[in-house]
Amino acid sequence: MMTIHAYAALEPKDVLQPFTYEPEALGEYDVQVEITHCGVCHSDIHIIDGDWGHHHPAVAGHEIIGIVRDRGARVNQIEVGQRVGIGWQSSSCLECEWCTQGHENVCEKSSATCRDNFGGFAETIYADARFVYAIPEALDSVNAAPLLCAGITVYAPLSRHVNASSKVGVIGIGGLGHLALQYARAMGCEVTAFSTTPEKEAEAREFGADHFVNTRDEAQMKAMRNTLDYILCTVNVQLDWRAYLRMLRPFGTFCMVGAVPGDLAISSGHLVGGERVVTGSSVGNRSSMREMLEFSARHNIIAQTEVMPMSEVNAALNRVRNNEARYRIVLEN
Amino acid sequence: MMTIHAYAALEPKDVLQPFTYEPEALGEYDVQVEITHCGVCHSDIHIIDGDWGHHHPAVAGHEIIGIVRDRGARVNQIEVGQRVGIGWQSSSCLECEWCTQGHENVCEKSSATCRDNFGGFAETIYADARFVYAIPEALDSVNAAPLLCAGITVYAPLSRHVNASSKVGVIGIGGLGHLALQYARAMGCEVTAFSTTPEKEAEAREFGADHFVNTRDEAQMKAMRNTLDYILCTVNVQLDWRAYLRMLRPFGTFCMVGAVPGDLAISSGHLVGGERVVTGSSVGNRSSMREMLEFSARHNIIAQTEVMPMSEVNAALNRVRNNEARYRIVLEN
Repeated sequence: MMTIHAYAALEPKDVLQPFTYEPEALGEYDVQVEITHCGVCHSDIHIIDGDWGHHHPAVAGHEIIGIVRDRGARVNQIEVGQRVGIGWQSSSCLECEWCTQGHENVCEKSSATCRDNFGGFAETIYADARFVYAIPEALDSVNAAPLLCAGITVYAPLSRHVNASSKVGVIGIGGLGHLALQYARAMGCEVTAFSTTPEKEAEAREFGADHFVNTRDEAQMKAMRNTLDYILCTVNVQLDWRAYLRMLRPFGTFCMVGAVPGDLAISSGHLVGGERVVTGSSVGNRSSMREMLEFSARHNIIAQTEVMPMSEVNAALNRVRNNEARYRIVLEN
Repeated sequence: MMTIHAYAALEPKDVLQPFTYEPEALGEYDVQVEITHCGVCHSDIHIIDGDWGHHHPAVAGHEIIGIVRDRGARVNQIEVGQRVGIGWQSSSCLECEWCTQGHENVCEKSSATCRDNFGGFAETIYADARFVYAIPEALDSVNAAPLLCAGITVYAPLSRHVNASSKVGVIGIGGLGHLALQYARAMGCEVTAFSTTPEKEAEAREFGADHFVNTRDEAQMKAMRNTLDYILCTVNVQLDWRAYLRMLRPFGTFCMVGAVPGDLAISSGHLVGGERVVTGSSVGNRSSMREMLEFSARHNIIAQTEVMPMSEVNAALNRVRNNEARYRIVLEN
């Protein structure tokens, strides 16, 4: 019997503790992955704190890079010894109308790596190989780990909604936003970064921003009216939605990738007159994951990371809780 | 010098009075149209009441059918003696980025038939022939008049957003909604009518509804959760947006065609999880107008009308103010 060593929150909001568990026998479609790296995402904190239901003991972690050590009889595309990645979604029914259309990410039977299973703050994980992705050689493991969740979360909506001549705004220059700037630039867009932190301007420009707006500066915000085709909102707090919708040109889209507590107050006039759109996006399907990894390798998209040993997971979580990570912490075994 | 006899509100909210004016000389691109019919739209009331600014004396009316009696030197596509229609939009710059993309309806220099000019509650109108549309022979003038505004307002978003397998909801079974039901059925969709008036059920089904929901019946509303791909909202009042967004399936769209006073309260969770969309639509461009008229003729889309003589315009307006029109009043000269 295999024993997996991990770090778990035994109860909501607990400090993580060393934790062992015995996985079920490797299924026909499963792979056993020895984890080398795992990114730390805000969603991990929600899982640990029990914000999304009680799934404790909880082993968080869903930006996983590792090496395949074993595989089930029906696994074809993934080889033993191969370097692979695992993201937020761990399975879906693969049979419903959405799965058959390639939209596994909205399948009602979708399960999540660290919400419905034990996740990546561990030495090893068993995973459904149909939701495990080959990592292109050009990508470094440390920099690739955050792509599995932060990367796909911003790549999927950008690739669906923008074209090379789009004028794109990115709200929030953190783990997701700093990747969104890189993707939007690589897609050929004119890119504006929106941040409450003017000290991030120089880095934002290096990531790909042509323009930087300090969102606390009213004059800068006002000057953006009617200038953008697309705004990707990577923050999960109440904003002045009216101000941002005014920045959209006709047919422009405002896209959120995280749920904001409370309702959005939106004026229908902004939607009707210029036929503007408010929408959201949730990670990405399997096809987008593969596309995102290939695109990231080809365009040298690099998550800027702080590397910490897996044993310092609690210190890492504190840095994320305090918004101190620049821009993503990756734990290393 | 030509003198045009019309009915005008001399000041906001006034009863209309006989009014004459002398139009400017017929421009190179203009046609003189003898008005035979003009529909009465809620927007006419906003114009008369001054809700959208003071443009008085105001000659409302923008669902116009008539016969061309003269044309400018550069008018090619429209002939003298031809039956034509005129809708909400009377001109645009035809040069900006939106006009050159065929999106004249969002042009910043767009003007409106009865807001920026004297409109269709009159015997005659001068109009830019580039925004005047040939009426297919199969369409009766009385039934075609409402298509020029009510028709295009619902046809344009439906034609852009739905396909034959879409499950479509239409909120509000009035001047716009009763046409939306017909279009959605003709496009092959499964159609649900939402109304506060259960007495409209039989007619709604004749117009094209497969299902009818009394929006005041909570159980009926709840049963609609996660069943629709598209909701077209034709009413301009605050609704339970949360309830309607819950009715959308993944990737579903909620589209408004009129501005609602006050903000919409929308939960971002509904947008992110299933990648749903909230948007709006505003009349339609010239290409959609032609397409809509051709589609309406081919599919026998018929506005259900009450015909009244133009001289009874004030009585007609009162019926519209009281929501008594079933479903559109058309004034006849």
